[in-house]
Amino acid sequence: MIPELNYRLHIKGQDLIIAVAQDFETSEVLMVAFMNQQAFQETLKTGKAHYWSTSRNQLWLKGESSGHLQMVEQILTDCDKDAVILKIRQEGAACHEGYYSCFYREIRESDGELLLIKEKLFQPENVYGEKKDEDSS
Amino acid sequence: MIPELNYRLHIKGQDLIIAVAQDFETSEVLMVAFMNQQAFQETLKTGKAHYWSTSRNQLWLKGESSGHLQMVEQILTDCDKDAVILKIRQEGAACHEGYYSCFYREIRESDGELLLIKEKLFQPENVYGEKKDEDSS
Repeated sequence: MIPELNYRLHIKGQDLIIAVAQDFETSEVLMVAFMNQQAFQETLKTGKAHYWSTSRNQLWLKGESSGHLQMVEQILTDCDKDAVILKIRQEGAACHEGYYSCFYREIRESDGELLLIKEKLFQPENVYGEKKDEDSS
Repeated sequence: MIPELNYRLHIKGQDLIIAVAQDFETSEVLMVAFMNQQAFQETLKTGKAHYWSTSRNQLWLKGESSGHLQMVEQILTDCDKDAVILKIRQEGAACHEGYYSCFYREIRESDGELLLIKEKLFQPENVYGEKKDEDSS
């Protein structure tokens, strides 16, 4: 049975929920993306995170091109069921820029400057070649 | 200086980013909401989380009616700058349903059942009276 979620966001003709990927062990938030019902079903069925790419407008198995799959351990949903948390084990790194988490920059509150706070784990061109954004949102 | 974020989500005439509120100490994700530029600016200026309520279509100081403010310790942004994480200290509880986190239910992967996994900290009617959804998204 697929639970009834609230696909209330509408982007380019798709009905979507927000999906937050969170490291199962450390609780670090790795990325935020979208899911349509198909992506959610595929995630449940396979145990691998699937999203809906709003840039390519297609189903997106995370790690399809990079090998950086996300193995889903637990799924939570919120009070109005328009968002889910995927508690995952990340293979490689979540961010197509080469960082473990897409949230690798802090916004300094005093002046709004963006500060790099994480280390790069890989060079994107070595993983994605020329088409380094194939595995991004 | 306000950093240039990518307000690429469009809901009811507003340009929005996604905001994830995460407990500064435990890294528990407490809620997911939206911010327009005004909400982001007010958050930076005051150190208290402000969102854009897409249901009421107005600026929303989290905790305005409940007293359950979110004091912002750190703000992160992601690779394409269309989402932020607010690392916060939560006063009271984040969820208007009475739970510390809005993500109080697990979706059981075997059958899609929703399982309650958190304890209620307060009864909504005691905090919000009749209008218990005044402090929700």
